[in-house]
Amino acid sequence: MQNHSVTMLGTGLIGEFYTMTLHSQRGRDRVEVVYSRTAERGEAFSARWGIPNSTTSMEEAINHPDTDVVVVGLPNDLHEEAIALTAAAGKAVLCTKPLARTAEEAKRILDTVERAGVFGGYLEDLVYTPKALKAIAAVQNGQIGDVTWVRSRETHPGPHSAWFWDGKRAGGGAIVDLGCHCIEIIRSYVGKGNRPVEVMCHADTLVHPIDAEDNAVALIRFESGAIGQFEVSWTFRGGMDLRDEIAGTEGTIWVNTFLRTGIEMYTSGGGEGYVAEKLESTEGWLFPVGNEVVELGYVDMFTDMFNAMEESRDPTETFYDGYVVNAIMDAAYRSNESRLWEPVDVEWRGGSTERIGSQAATFEGKNIVKEETLPDGRRKLILSDPESGAISDIVVSG
Amino acid sequence: MQNHSVTMLGTGLIGEFYTMTLHSQRGRDRVEVVYSRTAERGEAFSARWGIPNSTTSMEEAINHPDTDVVVVGLPNDLHEEAIALTAAAGKAVLCTKPLARTAEEAKRILDTVERAGVFGGYLEDLVYTPKALKAIAAVQNGQIGDVTWVRSRETHPGPHSAWFWDGKRAGGGAIVDLGCHCIEIIRSYVGKGNRPVEVMCHADTLVHPIDAEDNAVALIRFESGAIGQFEVSWTFRGGMDLRDEIAGTEGTIWVNTFLRTGIEMYTSGGGEGYVAEKLESTEGWLFPVGNEVVELGYVDMFTDMFNAMEESRDPTETFYDGYVVNAIMDAAYRSNESRLWEPVDVEWRGGSTERIGSQAATFEGKNIVKEETLPDGRRKLILSDPESGAISDIVVSG
Amino acid sequence: MQNHSVTMLGTGLIGEFYTMTLHSQRGRDRVEVVYSRTAERGEAFSARWGIPNSTTSMEEAINHPDTDVVVVGLPNDLHEEAIALTAAAGKAVLCTKPLARTAEEAKRILDTVERAGVFGGYLEDLVYTPKALKAIAAVQNGQIGDVTWVRSRETHPGPHSAWFWDGKRAGGGAIVDLGCHCIEIIRSYVGKGNRPVEVMCHADTLVHPIDAEDNAVALIRFESGAIGQFEVSWTFRGGMDLRDEIAGTEGTIWVNTFLRTGIEMYTSGGGEGYVAEKLESTEGWLFPVGNEVVELGYVDMFTDMFNAMEESRDPTETFYDGYVVNAIMDAAYRSNESRLWEPVDVEWRGGSTERIGSQAATFEGKNIVKEETLPDGRRKLILSDPESGAISDIVVSG
Amino acid sequence: MQNHSVTMLGTGLIGEFYTMTLHSQRGRDRVEVVYSRTAERGEAFSARWGIPNSTTSMEEAINHPDTDVVVVGLPNDLHEEAIALTAAAGKAVLCTKPLARTAEEAKRILDTVERAGVFGGYLEDLVYTPKALKAIAAVQNGQIGDVTWVRSRETHPGPHSAWFWDGKRAGGGAIVDLGCHCIEIIRSYVGKGNRPVEVMCHADTLVHPIDAEDNAVALIRFESGAIGQFEVSWTFRGGMDLRDEIAGTEGTIWVNTFLRTGIEMYTSGGGEGYVAEKLESTEGWLFPVGNEVVELGYVDMFTDMFNAMEESRDPTETFYDGYVVNAIMDAAYRSNESRLWEPVDVEWRGGSTERIGSQAATFEGKNIVKEETLPDGRRKLILSDPESGAISDIVVSG
Repeated sequence: MQNHSVTMLGTGLIGEFYTMTLHSQRGRDRVEVVYSRTAERGEAFSARWGIPNSTTSMEEAINHPDTDVVVVGLPNDLHEEAIALTAAAGKAVLCTKPLARTAEEAKRILDTVERAGVFGGYLEDLVYTPKALKAIAAVQNGQIGDVTWVRSRETHPGPHSAWFWDGKRAGGGAIVDLGCHCIEIIRSYVGKGNRPVEVMCHADTLVHPIDAEDNAVALIRFESGAIGQFEVSWTFRGGMDLRDEIAGTEGTIWVNTFLRTGIEMYTSGGGEGYVAEKLESTEGWLFPVGNEVVELGYVDMFTDMFNAMEESRDPTETFYDGYVVNAIMDAAYRSNESRLWEPVDVEWRGGSTERIGSQAATFEGKNIVKEETLPDGRRKLILSDPESGAISDIVVSG
Repeated sequence: MQNHSVTMLGTGLIGEFYTMTLHSQRGRDRVEVVYSRTAERGEAFSARWGIPNSTTSMEEAINHPDTDVVVVGLPNDLHEEAIALTAAAGKAVLCTKPLARTAEEAKRILDTVERAGVFGGYLEDLVYTPKALKAIAAVQNGQIGDVTWVRSRETHPGPHSAWFWDGKRAGGGAIVDLGCHCIEIIRSYVGKGNRPVEVMCHADTLVHPIDAEDNAVALIRFESGAIGQFEVSWTFRGGMDLRDEIAGTEGTIWVNTFLRTGIEMYTSGGGEGYVAEKLESTEGWLFPVGNEVVELGYVDMFTDMFNAMEESRDPTETFYDGYVVNAIMDAAYRSNESRLWEPVDVEWRGGSTERIGSQAATFEGKNIVKEETLPDGRRKLILSDPESGAISDIVVSG
Repeated sequence: MQNHSVTMLGTGLIGEFYTMTLHSQRGRDRVEVVYSRTAERGEAFSARWGIPNSTTSMEEAINHPDTDVVVVGLPNDLHEEAIALTAAAGKAVLCTKPLARTAEEAKRILDTVERAGVFGGYLEDLVYTPKALKAIAAVQNGQIGDVTWVRSRETHPGPHSAWFWDGKRAGGGAIVDLGCHCIEIIRSYVGKGNRPVEVMCHADTLVHPIDAEDNAVALIRFESGAIGQFEVSWTFRGGMDLRDEIAGTEGTIWVNTFLRTGIEMYTSGGGEGYVAEKLESTEGWLFPVGNEVVELGYVDMFTDMFNAMEESRDPTETFYDGYVVNAIMDAAYRSNESRLWEPVDVEWRGGSTERIGSQAATFEGKNIVKEETLPDGRRKLILSDPESGAISDIVVSG
Repeated sequence: MQNHSVTMLGTGLIGEFYTMTLHSQRGRDRVEVVYSRTAERGEAFSARWGIPNSTTSMEEAINHPDTDVVVVGLPNDLHEEAIALTAAAGKAVLCTKPLARTAEEAKRILDTVERAGVFGGYLEDLVYTPKALKAIAAVQNGQIGDVTWVRSRETHPGPHSAWFWDGKRAGGGAIVDLGCHCIEIIRSYVGKGNRPVEVMCHADTLVHPIDAEDNAVALIRFESGAIGQFEVSWTFRGGMDLRDEIAGTEGTIWVNTFLRTGIEMYTSGGGEGYVAEKLESTEGWLFPVGNEVVELGYVDMFTDMFNAMEESRDPTETFYDGYVVNAIMDAAYRSNESRLWEPVDVEWRGGSTERIGSQAATFEGKNIVKEETLPDGRRKLILSDPESGAISDIVVSG
């Protein structure tokens, strides 16, 4: 039973969530050092979470002798530098999503970490929500057959921090902020060995006075024939909408992670207290979740990361996964410009996957298209001729 | 208060639903003549619904002196002939969806009816569901602002009749069967005067041994910038999934028409009785609807049709609408072949629509991207410079 | 195919709903005469609904030669007089719920109508909602086995009309207003031949400055052993909560009639338009229904009433049912005073019902309490000794 | 940051859940000793969870020098003995629900622990579910005003272990098994200082061949006037139904802990894998939860227990709470026999609570019963005369 001591880089919303997770319940890992660009924020953060060391020097924070793990919770344009410094320090590094602003940058980061031989974990929390873990296991256990289609949706009224809205610093808009979640959710359901072949994306800036996209929809075609579909928006009204739908040849899964999870509250508006992230109102019908750091996957994510370190295995989400996500986002941006299906340009390590295949049952040499039981117990078969494709039907005894 | 007497062409599932609707509750309109290709089916149908006349001659049925309205509930390849005969007879004609197999065929049908000057109604029932009527009214009343995106989904395990599975007779697969519903639902929310500009579609035959597509997803870009997204499948597991989601600049609407409407039933499997269309099982958790002909829109649809005849106005759904739907489906099929966004080729009568526009509020000459109230009552503004696009933030007193 | 012409007594909310129902869709029955105490209200009502005759004389309205049916939509203290006049006129009479303020009054009304030999229909709409009809049919078809328990809940923030709040005119508070619905819903599920034996009720006036109860919960024990449970409140926050839950030995049914029926709408508050009855707000998350007069059962109720007249049969809801409801409410009020289970004092016409009985399966002379399949395929049986009641378990091969 | 070492008494379902909780995620507390009556079960359990010590001597397990905390997960009739031994050993003791079979037994247990001065924690997990914690906090923050009514429901098809079905060992049936959860949930919402005054209960054995009750409904009246209502059943079909509803003067909360939490899965029945506790089927529509030990409250419960030990404070759930629960259950059983409201016989430590009181607003000396805004902006007031109780209404300008 090992304990880990963490350097936390960044004190924004994501740093809050990460630290809340590590310091909650009966955990044995602790944040020991925090880095913030401004001393005031760093000290307030330290005080809030009982962290002994605070510094405005990223290098000092990373190299602090008391810690063995560095968590990167910084704006996207600072990931590469922070990871390079951590790799040089020989410490494990866990980086928030997206790994980088482009696949090229992600690949450099991946190479740096692999060369240094340090542990790298990609902090894609939404793949680790308890519901996602349960649903992914159901898919892997064959409970819904072959996956044919996954829809992953993440939309809300827009981020809190200014830098997110600045396409230059963030590397884009809603796609970079939210699409990275959806892509990895989709990959987890279709199978990580299922190569993303090409992407079609439509993005637009419909509401906010910004350069980056505030809405996008994309289709990802995988080698098996499965389609991943992501929908992201910074203009959704009503809270934060996190939903996934998975269709398989033998079943269906619908996951609602945030707005409809079994607590419904109506309030005339009195009283006090935090209800939920990205909530738009504090009166009327509200839909909180039980425990946000659990429901958003942070708890299971850090468990996997630290356990993986101790067991000398890869975590479920690696820097390679982060790089694939960036490659898919790059294809999405190219597609939005070219208006074409764009190939996903990635150094693929995942092997190959067969085409979704349901071996059709046959009847007297014809393929059975559909079979229904009639009220009188007989069976009606709709048949297709394998040569001509001609459709016919026949009723047979039950 | 007029009564109408109807000739019903066709005795399949749709003919059942239409007749059940007309003969239910305290309605004053009645089916007086039914046409079926086989005498046996026609007579069984007549007996079931108390219809005085049954014939195997389509022409005789259409020209029967007791009726003033002809309802076309035939396979897609017979619509044009039936409508031409009805137009020649000078009677009102109501045609099931889709109007035709292609826009070209639809245009010929439209021209025939307009030349004859008879009343033509397009029987797109899902635009008339009580929920759709309520939601469309809410959109038209401005309750969700400008519509930015509409998702319409119709999926089930596949149709009952053999002809549906035959791409030649039907004109296609799941797109022609189900996409036509989704397209008209989308148009009703984005506004029928909002021109559909181009379509991107991905279709595939993943499960069934047929030539036609059993799965498709498409994006429709409208003149205003709004995106319509339809998802259709003949391989969905779990019943019939009819859902629509509408995003607006000031609100959100989610409509679930069939599988989650407020009745939930668990049964160990005993007992008897019809539960719902396209249901896959009669035990476990089941999700019926109250009254199918109401919930699927048939009641309100025929009310609008007959009232429109009496008030000498167009119904909400006209043959022109049916033609636009076919034009969008044609573009979807072309797009699936070309892998390109394909223009919608239609003789447009709908005028033009402005781009979705939220006039950004400003603060000291900068556009306000987002405004939040801090716990201490002060307001935080995220601003973008209208010239440079640079993002900044500022905190001001409340 | 007969048409009926109706005299509508009363122009309040219920008169609106009834007339809206009769004049909606393609119905063949019409309101021809309306009575209101004040000429102004009567004339506004007539104009709104296209009714040719309006009068301030109840007698004149009832005896108007153009009508064959009288609908009583008046405050509870005027039902007896109106029904007596209608019976004297020899016309069919349909009376809103509750039939009377007490069982004694209800019995006099029942006797009057039976002596006169006119058709009497009890307008208990919530038994006729499409969902209730579907669910009651499922129960009657045996899909959930023997009913053991029914919960019926009707709560909202309080009625619109002043007279409702006046216990003297109404005959009570939330029990009389809402409990009458719940009782008849419960009876429809446990079976109308299942005698209500005794009632335990707790009522209180917790919030409003009135004499009548604004909250109540009651248990009704039926002859079969089934328990009906009603919950009524005039202090519920969040809209109108109409839910029923039915437990059976072989299944479960949950019905949500109003607040969660498959439409969910978030609005920032702009726009216009009626959303739903008893709604508390016009912004935030709102939950309208598709078509209120359908969803609240009015359409199917009037269909049953008029069809019953034409078919010379009893409607599903008779004045006798109304009388039983009053008898149960009387027992509830007595119980709230005495704090005891109070017998239901009613002239019972419904025959008798057997005790809920599941014949226990046996194994080697012992009753099987529970049977589970273990992961290895063997079966675990929990057994009770029929003599001693001793519990044991055993594992047997599958 | 202290670690705790635990002796686990019992290896049934509850011992599994407790150990799974303690050994999951990155927890710092561990089970070091396990006691089972049979060596085989104890060793299998130890192996499964990596526990170093297993014994068939309860005394040895409790007094093992490596542990500082004893968790009692034994049948109800063994609680008193186990707790007495632990108190004698001077260790902290945490006991599963219910604390005892009767209030008398519970009181002896409470006295034993208090005399010994050891830490006692009552393992009522359902008060610690993330949803309950969020909802209770909302109530305590005033977001729904004064609580008027709480419904807590726990029903499933019956327990797994034979001893549960044996009323003598368990102390009763569904009330003792499930009602204890509901009672403490209700107390948490109405306030633990709100004295339970009297109880009315109806119980019956409707389905299973046992002596103990398999169904019960009870009302608990609290000093404030609030009503708690619990519904328990061992005959529910469809899984495990855990729902709570809280009504307040300013709001409403609905909590669904198990069957409808945002994952919906349809499967044709292939595949493998555990889905959820008390599930009745592995095909059709299934409703799992994300992480059972989280969603059922075990994680937060043990966090509170261990933190309370370290902070030398009482946990949220004490042995005194367990005793109050037993006292309420005793009153329920007495009431079911006597058919009367029975007083709750308890040594009350909780102080007193005022009657629910909404100070009525007044208008011209009359109490305002209801206030509505009319379409034209004027306000309609329904008024009651504080002397006579007479009801009137008036329309005033807005």
